[in-house]
Amino acid sequence: MTTRRKKIYEGKAKILYEGPEPGTLIQYFKDDATAFNAQKKAVLEGKGVINNRISEYIMTRLNGIGVQNHFIRRLSLREQLIKEVEIIPLEVVVRNIAAGSIATRLGLTEGTPLPRSIIEFYYKDDKLGDPMVSEEHITAFNWAATQEIDDMMAMALRVNDYLSGLFSGVGITLVDFKIEFGRVYEGDFSRVILADEISPDSCRLWDSATNEKMDKDRFRRDLGNVIESYTEVARRLGIMKEMPTVIQGGVH
Amino acid sequence: MTTRRKKIYEGKAKILYEGPEPGTLIQYFKDDATAFNAQKKAVLEGKGVINNRISEYIMTRLNGIGVQNHFIRRLSLREQLIKEVEIIPLEVVVRNIAAGSIATRLGLTEGTPLPRSIIEFYYKDDKLGDPMVSEEHITAFNWAATQEIDDMMAMALRVNDYLSGLFSGVGITLVDFKIEFGRVYEGDFSRVILADEISPDSCRLWDSATNEKMDKDRFRRDLGNVIESYTEVARRLGIMKEMPTVIQGGVH
Repeated sequence: MTTRRKKIYEGKAKILYEGPEPGTLIQYFKDDATAFNAQKKAVLEGKGVINNRISEYIMTRLNGIGVQNHFIRRLSLREQLIKEVEIIPLEVVVRNIAAGSIATRLGLTEGTPLPRSIIEFYYKDDKLGDPMVSEEHITAFNWAATQEIDDMMAMALRVNDYLSGLFSGVGITLVDFKIEFGRVYEGDFSRVILADEISPDSCRLWDSATNEKMDKDRFRRDLGNVIESYTEVARRLGIMKEMPTVIQGGVH
Repeated sequence: MTTRRKKIYEGKAKILYEGPEPGTLIQYFKDDATAFNAQKKAVLEGKGVINNRISEYIMTRLNGIGVQNHFIRRLSLREQLIKEVEIIPLEVVVRNIAAGSIATRLGLTEGTPLPRSIIEFYYKDDKLGDPMVSEEHITAFNWAATQEIDDMMAMALRVNDYLSGLFSGVGITLVDFKIEFGRVYEGDFSRVILADEISPDSCRLWDSATNEKMDKDRFRRDLGNVIESYTEVARRLGIMKEMPTVIQGGVH
């Protein structure tokens, strides 16, 4: 179906196609995995299917608690219908536990709980390696308005609270996650809604009992069992029940 | 005189000695120059003397417009009496024109005027290479309180306004500068005052007519005539009149 549709944008893990109605797009989840600013690449068979389902599940629930987002409905194994938004060129990262770049930058041992949840902004620019920026840069270069930053931060903290609870309930620790936002226009006004995806590609998820990684770090760090871990996240969330548990000696 | 005093702290360009009274210190300006996190080192004969004078001049004037700072009075060629403060472990950078790390990080051509002045914070930690941080990190790790950040930002902008005017009047463009702040305590209360130094070591200063650099970038980038340029800054500010103009084919 998507092959006949006009491609609007192709990213590293997803493709956006023209949607069936104005103001909609079709978001297609690829199996491609990239890390370290696309220096490391692989195809992980089935990743797109799992992330489409997990993102559907989370976005639907976030909508249920009033965190407005771009998700409309899932169309197929790899496709979902979404609202077209004007993407704000920022990655918004919420961190609960030190891991990844904050551990390196600030000399923290991975796994150290942060004194409180910390929100970071990164400017989306592959050529620059997505540099960290502050509100000062964001407002000076007009990437987002002060009110939009406030809205994104408030929504990011709500997403963090909800997801921390959701994952905690199924034995998973939400270490950190990355989200993106976009503007939707209504007449002369715009507001900011959650966009992109929320999946093991965009979260750090650790098994609460063993601290074993169940997210993209398995790919980044060559830990193996990437798809098995993603599937286990989906299984614990109660989605993809129809699929057999693939994990054999996986991340339990 | 300082040799008999107790050394409190030795940094890359300055030494702090115990002061004559409680709550005071003596700040001694060395000739040592370092760059790139001390990977590049040199001794620049006379730098300490010039920076002592320039910092005296600027701090005195800032005090005159109500920007409270640690400077009390100059004691000798290389020494000044200062108030003892509890240093906040942040470098506060104000940028008017893209140069240095912001040009690299955000892909801006050096010399491009920024849309507005931008304030950045860097966490003072040589081992980590002074990483850039945001208000989120500063408050989460309790390096400074929200009110202190607001106070530092307000003071930084006032310093920027005043110094932009001061240098502009003598044909110098203030590209950016770094300042530091410290807490002074009064009973149970503390307030934040400007500390450290303001000199061609901590500012980017370009000749307004030629854009020639008159600051530490001459050392960082091996442009030569470092001391001649610093002396020329002092000469244009009307200090060190007693010293002959050293510059011969310098940065005019």
